[in-house]
Amino acid sequence: MMNTPLTMTQMINRAEIFFPKKEVVSRTESRTQRFTYKEIANRTKRLAASLEGLGVKRGDKVGTMAWNHHRHLEAYFAIPCSGAVLHTINIRLSPQHIVYIINHAKDKVLLIDADIVPLIEKCQDQLRTVEAFVIMTDDDELPETSLSPVYHYEKLLENADSEYAYPDDLDENAAAGMCYTSATTGNPKGVVYSHRAIVLHSMAIGMADSAAVSEQDVAMPVVPMFHVNAWGLPFAAVWFGTTLVMPGPYFTPKLLAEMIQQERVTITAGVPTIWLGLLKELEENTYDMSSLRGVLCGGAAAPKGLIRAFEEKHKIPFMHAYGMTETSPLVVISTLKSYQKELSYEEQLDIKAKQGVLVPGLEMKIMGSKGEVAWDGKEMGELCLRGPWIASEYYDDERTADSFRDGWLHTGDVVSVDGEGFMKIVDRTKDLIKSGGEWISSVDLENTLMAHEAVFEAAVIGVPHEQWQERPLAYVVLKDPYKGKISQEELLEFLKPQFAKWWIPDDVIFIDDIPKSSVGKFLKRELRDMQQKQLSNSEN
Amino acid sequence: MMNTPLTMTQMINRAEIFFPKKEVVSRTESRTQRFTYKEIANRTKRLAASLEGLGVKRGDKVGTMAWNHHRHLEAYFAIPCSGAVLHTINIRLSPQHIVYIINHAKDKVLLIDADIVPLIEKCQDQLRTVEAFVIMTDDDELPETSLSPVYHYEKLLENADSEYAYPDDLDENAAAGMCYTSATTGNPKGVVYSHRAIVLHSMAIGMADSAAVSEQDVAMPVVPMFHVNAWGLPFAAVWFGTTLVMPGPYFTPKLLAEMIQQERVTITAGVPTIWLGLLKELEENTYDMSSLRGVLCGGAAAPKGLIRAFEEKHKIPFMHAYGMTETSPLVVISTLKSYQKELSYEEQLDIKAKQGVLVPGLEMKIMGSKGEVAWDGKEMGELCLRGPWIASEYYDDERTADSFRDGWLHTGDVVSVDGEGFMKIVDRTKDLIKSGGEWISSVDLENTLMAHEAVFEAAVIGVPHEQWQERPLAYVVLKDPYKGKISQEELLEFLKPQFAKWWIPDDVIFIDDIPKSSVGKFLKRELRDMQQKQLSNSEN
Repeated sequence: MMNTPLTMTQMINRAEIFFPKKEVVSRTESRTQRFTYKEIANRTKRLAASLEGLGVKRGDKVGTMAWNHHRHLEAYFAIPCSGAVLHTINIRLSPQHIVYIINHAKDKVLLIDADIVPLIEKCQDQLRTVEAFVIMTDDDELPETSLSPVYHYEKLLENADSEYAYPDDLDENAAAGMCYTSATTGNPKGVVYSHRAIVLHSMAIGMADSAAVSEQDVAMPVVPMFHVNAWGLPFAAVWFGTTLVMPGPYFTPKLLAEMIQQERVTITAGVPTIWLGLLKELEENTYDMSSLRGVLCGGAAAPKGLIRAFEEKHKIPFMHAYGMTETSPLVVISTLKSYQKELSYEEQLDIKAKQGVLVPGLEMKIMGSKGEVAWDGKEMGELCLRGPWIASEYYDDERTADSFRDGWLHTGDVVSVDGEGFMKIVDRTKDLIKSGGEWISSVDLENTLMAHEAVFEAAVIGVPHEQWQERPLAYVVLKDPYKGKISQEELLEFLKPQFAKWWIPDDVIFIDDIPKSSVGKFLKRELRDMQQKQLSNSEN
Repeated sequence: MMNTPLTMTQMINRAEIFFPKKEVVSRTESRTQRFTYKEIANRTKRLAASLEGLGVKRGDKVGTMAWNHHRHLEAYFAIPCSGAVLHTINIRLSPQHIVYIINHAKDKVLLIDADIVPLIEKCQDQLRTVEAFVIMTDDDELPETSLSPVYHYEKLLENADSEYAYPDDLDENAAAGMCYTSATTGNPKGVVYSHRAIVLHSMAIGMADSAAVSEQDVAMPVVPMFHVNAWGLPFAAVWFGTTLVMPGPYFTPKLLAEMIQQERVTITAGVPTIWLGLLKELEENTYDMSSLRGVLCGGAAAPKGLIRAFEEKHKIPFMHAYGMTETSPLVVISTLKSYQKELSYEEQLDIKAKQGVLVPGLEMKIMGSKGEVAWDGKEMGELCLRGPWIASEYYDDERTADSFRDGWLHTGDVVSVDGEGFMKIVDRTKDLIKSGGEWISSVDLENTLMAHEAVFEAAVIGVPHEQWQERPLAYVVLKDPYKGKISQEELLEFLKPQFAKWWIPDDVIFIDDIPKSSVGKFLKRELRDMQQKQLSNSEN
């Protein structure tokens, strides 16, 4: 067989050759524009030529700090297809961490949205490797800025060579992208994606049993493009000629609902927090969501109540999945097996509330303290993964040794797997509550609480306890209409029939917001800190 | 990213782990049986252990001469997953060619269906490398045979170690399979498939825009397993947990229709001749075909009338595709683009009558005499292909140089590509009719003739002509009810409004059968010989 490499160049080329009329709908800071793939492909070549003009060479890192829009999409292809490395930077990280990762990755050029400029101006002095800043803006002129040297994205493209040709000798194992993931403590850790990994991952999300992304779709990645490549959707969409809808900066649930309705979006992807917000909007206002064939949900376990509300009330199929920055990210997806479709909806819901079955191409094992655990839906262990789109290390980082051992990624996620091979996230190893020598899943308690009609969000943490080592404590955000009208006791009573007695939290604390990470995950560390402070305050 | 190889072992492992209850329905010489993937996986390991017991080592070739059934499926995985090479032998070739390819491939062991034994007995003396014969039969005892040493497949499995473990160090570029393809003249030419190619090709046929093979499917490969791995369907089906229906030996259109109805087959695959036969059966008897979501058709261009009859009359979606032994085989498939679904059915049919759009992962170019031709649906040129499941050579064969040049496979197929990127087979380079310095497509004339209600099959060849160099001559098989009731002139009149005057054949000859190759393709060479003989007879 031919030794042709699996590189990303084929993706943008295929969009240009076979789907030149298909569109990218892009919302930026000032307006919503439409571009054909022919235009996007042309602009992508011009961007690649521009970056070469700025001195970017094979293997150089180019950072992006941008929302989901067409320019970011162009960077997604121009950078790797020219042989450089697309480094998507999470704009929601602390300035200190942003400085760390830009320096650690050795970014040579930064592509920045205009609204991010002030953030970078503040830390410009600390950036040791950046040789040029390119500002992505709809305005004809650059904003006033102390960044230097600084370029206007559109003017670079105007003056660039559209006859630019991508190199045809890229190695499939060469770095194509990188993304840093937050660590529990210390600096973020970098993951490098190869061309091969991105190509195979894109095929995986195009497969009928997986997300089945296709030319027929109108795909709207809500998950940010600075978060694991927006789960790989932009790569797959371009490759397959899928219409892309990019929701841009500072979107609201209302705006998402409007874009879905207007553009007839068929598939969208984001974390549970996004869908909780959309659900609220759908409950308050009326939209036509009939175009949606799937809402892909990952990043954290989706509460059963959320799935039920989407499917039963709004007739929107819910696609529960699991992945992480280290896994490109798709690992499992909760596609029902053919014979499971004969079950009652309640039984199907129990399955859909699990993260799902391993996609073709990967291997998994579940390691308990005494080796691999049984796949009986009860035994718990740490999920370990292997495969061509699973990271083999953290980039230039000593913490590699903690997570990558014996050829497997040790995810730090505690899971159980049932007899049908459906995996369920039980908890992060560090969030499991150890009570009286047994484990309590904070995630199970949270999801059950969130299934209560009055509860908007819930987080459960372990609190140190003299006798039992740890005991669960629940933080709950009530929905507005229920505030002041429901008691802690009522919620605990709601839990009691559903769990063993010793699983029931010792208390429920009502709060206004659950602190969240830059990617919308609950920050339980902050809740623990909060609880520690309250404890020491009350002791003083 | 991890350097894990793309090997086939993951396919059979995934079926065993995630889909142990799913079934393979297998029709063999004596009966139809059902096996779960758990059983198939266990038997596959036993077969691998048995073959090792017979002395098969890494890289050794193991030949199969068998119909589509569960034992052949077991061989499909046991052989490559143990590191050997699955050599599927076309049982319809001449004994002379069968001897050639077994010797040329250096097959060490042959797995043979009981009904093929007499064929091999006749040429056993000429086989230079075969050290053991294994007979696949439902009978408890071996048939009487002069083959030696000879083994009973089921008894080997009974006595084999089911704790056998596949090697975990296979290279993805190692040979996994091989298949010989007929040449116009001379011996068949061998193509070797790597693990990598088979894995990537399987992903490709699982993609939503391609054949979308999925766990939800009940797939029946009618195309023989000795013909380009039954187009890769068995590999994909096992990997994805798809129910497989294997139609076994000597099936009739009636049997196919019955199996589709009984097993609720959702997707099936075969050459146009098969579907012409099934269509005739559906016209004569009543079946419930409502489970079918697609009939995959390749190997030769499907006449528009055939597509229309399936879709309009029987409501069975038709999936036109193109590939060859050298291409694993999937190259293009005629999935309509989203916006083409708004066209009238007649316009859609015009598109579906083309072979389709290149699947993700491959590259193509169309070479005319003066370089690449325009994609305007008119210009014709030779299809050239490149990609990770395209062969790079013929196995140990000097004819490699004719077809593999400059890193491309030159297919020998003349095609045009329209503005939407849909490829249409115009002809084989050797079957194009050159008349008055212009090209006439024999395939176009055939397909139009076959769209006539009276015509069952039609083949058009070029006949030498003094003035025009060549002129087209049509051979037509009429449907039974029309025999003797329609004239040559009527058919020519039917063609006239649809083609330029000089395209119209000089004559139509009615015959009872069009000679076909072992894989169901028209053997135009035989028609040309026939025509030559008639010519010389009439001259004598």
